[in-house]
Amino acid sequence: MSNPLKVGIAGLGTVGAGTVRVLETQAALLAARSGREIKVTAVAARERGKDRGVKLDSYAWHEDARALAGLADVDVVVELIGGADGIAKDLVEAAIANGKHVVTANKALIARHGTDLARKAEKAGVTLAFEASVAGGIPIVKALREGLAANRVSRIYGILNGTCNYILTNMRETGKSFAEVLAEAQKLGYAEADPVFDVDGIDAAHKLAILASLAFGCEVDFKSVHTEGIRDISAEDIQFADQLGYRIKLLGIARRTEHGIEQRVHPCMVPEKLPIAHIDGVFNAVVADGDFVETTLYEGRGAGAGPTASAVVADLVDIARGHRIPAFGVPSSALTKLPVSPLSQHRGAYYVRFTVLDRPGVFAEIAAALRDHSVSMESILQHSRAPGEKVPVVLTTHETEEGAMQATLQAILKSGAVTEPPTMIRIEAF
Amino acid sequence: MSNPLKVGIAGLGTVGAGTVRVLETQAALLAARSGREIKVTAVAARERGKDRGVKLDSYAWHEDARALAGLADVDVVVELIGGADGIAKDLVEAAIANGKHVVTANKALIARHGTDLARKAEKAGVTLAFEASVAGGIPIVKALREGLAANRVSRIYGILNGTCNYILTNMRETGKSFAEVLAEAQKLGYAEADPVFDVDGIDAAHKLAILASLAFGCEVDFKSVHTEGIRDISAEDIQFADQLGYRIKLLGIARRTEHGIEQRVHPCMVPEKLPIAHIDGVFNAVVADGDFVETTLYEGRGAGAGPTASAVVADLVDIARGHRIPAFGVPSSALTKLPVSPLSQHRGAYYVRFTVLDRPGVFAEIAAALRDHSVSMESILQHSRAPGEKVPVVLTTHETEEGAMQATLQAILKSGAVTEPPTMIRIEAF
Repeated sequence: MSNPLKVGIAGLGTVGAGTVRVLETQAALLAARSGREIKVTAVAARERGKDRGVKLDSYAWHEDARALAGLADVDVVVELIGGADGIAKDLVEAAIANGKHVVTANKALIARHGTDLARKAEKAGVTLAFEASVAGGIPIVKALREGLAANRVSRIYGILNGTCNYILTNMRETGKSFAEVLAEAQKLGYAEADPVFDVDGIDAAHKLAILASLAFGCEVDFKSVHTEGIRDISAEDIQFADQLGYRIKLLGIARRTEHGIEQRVHPCMVPEKLPIAHIDGVFNAVVADGDFVETTLYEGRGAGAGPTASAVVADLVDIARGHRIPAFGVPSSALTKLPVSPLSQHRGAYYVRFTVLDRPGVFAEIAAALRDHSVSMESILQHSRAPGEKVPVVLTTHETEEGAMQATLQAILKSGAVTEPPTMIRIEAF
Repeated sequence: MSNPLKVGIAGLGTVGAGTVRVLETQAALLAARSGREIKVTAVAARERGKDRGVKLDSYAWHEDARALAGLADVDVVVELIGGADGIAKDLVEAAIANGKHVVTANKALIARHGTDLARKAEKAGVTLAFEASVAGGIPIVKALREGLAANRVSRIYGILNGTCNYILTNMRETGKSFAEVLAEAQKLGYAEADPVFDVDGIDAAHKLAILASLAFGCEVDFKSVHTEGIRDISAEDIQFADQLGYRIKLLGIARRTEHGIEQRVHPCMVPEKLPIAHIDGVFNAVVADGDFVETTLYEGRGAGAGPTASAVVADLVDIARGHRIPAFGVPSSALTKLPVSPLSQHRGAYYVRFTVLDRPGVFAEIAAALRDHSVSMESILQHSRAPGEKVPVVLTTHETEEGAMQATLQAILKSGAVTEPPTMIRIEAF
């Protein structure tokens, strides 16, 4: 058996402690699978005293994570600090510069600096691996870089944020509002105290940008991801979705179009007969369509100590086995800069909920706006109330262009037919 | 860029021709991903004249596939002939002996001789890869050997035969009998003229034995797979399943028990709320439970030229990239011989359909047999008919031991209460 692979772990939160636990618990198994021992030699975290549920006294302790990049007895730096910049980025860059492999779970870092870091790693002849950055324990990075290597991928989409999926599932099951369910999720630890990254779609957008780069062989382009969150989804929308045979899911969708690459994260109505409609709670799922393999789906837990550590350690096993694959599956020089396919040119069906005053002429104004923009209606739902009361009207459209849809909504808003801005949710039948 | 990887393809049926097509269509993409060209240099098939939809004149043609094992300009032999023995086995053994890597889609060969071939490949320092042998295009072999490498897998199960899943789905949708749907599937090309391998569960058992070895790090033990097919599933069973909230699926299930390893292929009733219940038609799906990653699911097309060739070529890319992994994820010397967990000790719930004469005392006889074997009933369904007519009675049990269940059925059969042998389907709630 060869020399052990020596690992320095930066960041001892849930995932860091989980990684230490996996490496300890599975030591014999991992050695058999890797052909060599995988051994933690150093750890870094600021607070030394804290109980993290694992024994850490046998490892060299560094308060400044950046120190790991310079240690002679570290072959791989595992970065579990988080954040697109700051210490995480400093550490990763220094580790690469010093000829050390890097394994990270940091989606923000890879989404914002992935292409640049991949170039640096390649130049230094080291591996940059980030299986844990997308969809937790699901080995989707490996599936795209290796398992589907024979395919040109045309589309990749999925449920990439467990917090949002938990909230939407719970709203549907209980009929409660977004705010109520969010507050409960925060109490249960399923949502952060500051939920912005999750509920506003940013976390999913980070992951989508990484998946798109792997799937299409293009530079990571996080800035071009159109991102909407789930704050505006109401209990009413969820009820209407049920009536119409849909489920509301926050999806990340990236696809090749005739104009380039479209990347978007937003709530979607998906037909309830699709498998993705039944991925509930904190689970993640990713669907990849390849030209030969056709449709494949991957499902599992998208977060948590065990699943995320499982992905981190899978990367370590690859490195221990001596596998070297460019970060995004092709050499960084081969990564293309694909043009952004503008959302205004996206074609799809739409669900729109208007709040109107129940008075004569309202329907005529809405219908006129649709006609003026050549948007064709598919169905309409209204539950009548007393005249003069506010009432929700829901309509779905046939396939139309996003630009036309947006212009229609503007026209309706201006016409005074509605009492508040309409809610628009894209329908994705796949 | 390094030297091209030179490939000899043996067998030019659907998958062989599909593999040639993928290698041609994606040549540039594969070179970028592998860091070198992947180049077909020789092919082997008996009939030269046949139109296979791909151009083959630029490759050296061999009528005897075994010749590929001896060619100097072949680095990898791709075996797509099929069959557990005969030419396929001769070719693979000769290729390994000559220091050539082997990629195969041959589940029968790997299920019956996998451990032995893995040992030989290891000794010769070559790769034996068989992603295409299980679940078509789904990269499940890679997921188990690499993606879930950090986990001890406790259970793996799935829908492993597309033909059976198509037949069961179609029976449910149309209400037709097994024989009718099979005949239609044969006409449509979804079932072979000789359907034994598929409908009697043997194909699924081959795949399950391979998955179990990968999941548990044990020698492949096809002979110990308890195998039942779907011939005895009636339209009535499918209706009763619906009424009880189940779907009938042919599953392959392998798990660690306190007694060793249990491997079984048989029709199952699965609760309709489970994702696996909604994998319909020709799709395959595999669920793997790991101690850290928890439950993961993989879905895609289990057969067909494109998906299977996608898996074959993924193995070629791995070889071109220089990755070397033992065939079953650990060195063959580390593969354990796990004891067989006898099915008689299996604990689970059961669905049983009896055909009885509608006369007094029948229920008492059934109830007495259940009581005598300590089998506890969960529910019972009977739609009454005219007295004296044959009538189906369906019952489901609480969890009980298989041995007790079998003894109960024997006792009921002997009692004369039933007019034909009862149908028993295991309920799997997972």
